[in-house]
Amino acid sequence: MHVNFLLFEGLTQLDMTGPYEVLANAPGFTVDFVAKTSDPVRCDRGLRFVPTQTIASAPPCDLLVVPGGPGTDDAIVDPDWVAFTRGQGRQARYVFGICTGSLLLGAAGLLRGKRASSHWRARELLSRFGATPSDERLCVDGRLFTAGGVTSGIDMALKVVAELCGEDAAKLIQLQIEYDPKPPFPGGTPKTSEPAVVQRYLEMSQARYERRSQAVDRAAAAMAP
Amino acid sequence: MHVNFLLFEGLTQLDMTGPYEVLANAPGFTVDFVAKTSDPVRCDRGLRFVPTQTIASAPPCDLLVVPGGPGTDDAIVDPDWVAFTRGQGRQARYVFGICTGSLLLGAAGLLRGKRASSHWRARELLSRFGATPSDERLCVDGRLFTAGGVTSGIDMALKVVAELCGEDAAKLIQLQIEYDPKPPFPGGTPKTSEPAVVQRYLEMSQARYERRSQAVDRAAAAMAP
Repeated sequence: MHVNFLLFEGLTQLDMTGPYEVLANAPGFTVDFVAKTSDPVRCDRGLRFVPTQTIASAPPCDLLVVPGGPGTDDAIVDPDWVAFTRGQGRQARYVFGICTGSLLLGAAGLLRGKRASSHWRARELLSRFGATPSDERLCVDGRLFTAGGVTSGIDMALKVVAELCGEDAAKLIQLQIEYDPKPPFPGGTPKTSEPAVVQRYLEMSQARYERRSQAVDRAAAAMAP
Repeated sequence: MHVNFLLFEGLTQLDMTGPYEVLANAPGFTVDFVAKTSDPVRCDRGLRFVPTQTIASAPPCDLLVVPGGPGTDDAIVDPDWVAFTRGQGRQARYVFGICTGSLLLGAAGLLRGKRASSHWRARELLSRFGATPSDERLCVDGRLFTAGGVTSGIDMALKVVAELCGEDAAKLIQLQIEYDPKPPFPGGTPKTSEPAVVQRYLEMSQARYERRSQAVDRAAAAMAP
């Protein structure tokens, strides 16, 4: 079972590193990190990762994993990333989008007629790619796994392992990574966080949302049929 | 508030990348990744990270963060890592160990007379460094924050942000990373996982535990007074 992770500039690294920790511990899984070039790739907060393949050299994969983050807004209007995601996403047995990574799946035409989730702040944008937005943290539609924002990728990766390797494999990894989460506060979604916290995040993220919305419009207009 | 993350070969990357996602989003926080040299550092599963400082060039920090992983067994008997951790850990306002990262804090003499946690499989080893092992997922003793295995670092990082920046800052980050976790299975600790899963992990990890136990003995014997 070979896994290709997309590694683009400005990704939110926990979208990738959370699922990676789970998937790389699954029996028989091998992993590549695919970037545009062989240079290190910088995440939205600055940490740099060394890719193992480029989009020109990447092998086919059984599972394609697409993280999100601010860099998604560039990736969805980048013909190279869109073509790569489309090509690999069509041939892979499974496709896994985390956070706003689902927008790139959408731009690649992989979500038409599908139910899909995304970061709660970006979810409604999926409809512009012909998808039905889901407010599930973990959304499964056939071979397509899409998770909500950032940390939901960890939950979904365990579900993917359970699906592909059996529940015991997933439970073993859960014990290994001591995943019995105890957030110090209730919250984490617009429904569970305090209204003042939600309001502040909406204000803080408004400018980014507008830029993203414009990028999604351009990406939707450029979609292959 | 400057944060130095230790970046040693063979670390478990989610020990680092989980807390990094939280801390790097806290207001006014800057972050460095400190390795022995400026070469990329490989985690236990293969992904490579580019350091931003070396142990020779690293600035002092307000918060020292020490991840764990199989590489801990080498780091705790490496005089360079032990000396660096001791020097930075003594001057930092706060020290944060995740998973078996607490063993390196122990080897550096920072846990004498302190309560500290670690990955559940390694916890009892802390007593050899003069610490009182705690079975808490999040253990706070004065300026010392120690978390249980891997994913507990995310919970603890939110607690650290709450302590240093106020609860509202932590709650905002929790909403941003959609951290309302829903593991697909119960489990994640020896108490909550099924007995057969615990038994399998104990067997699978026995050889590593024995190597680790020997490394801890050597590190404890070499401890500075």
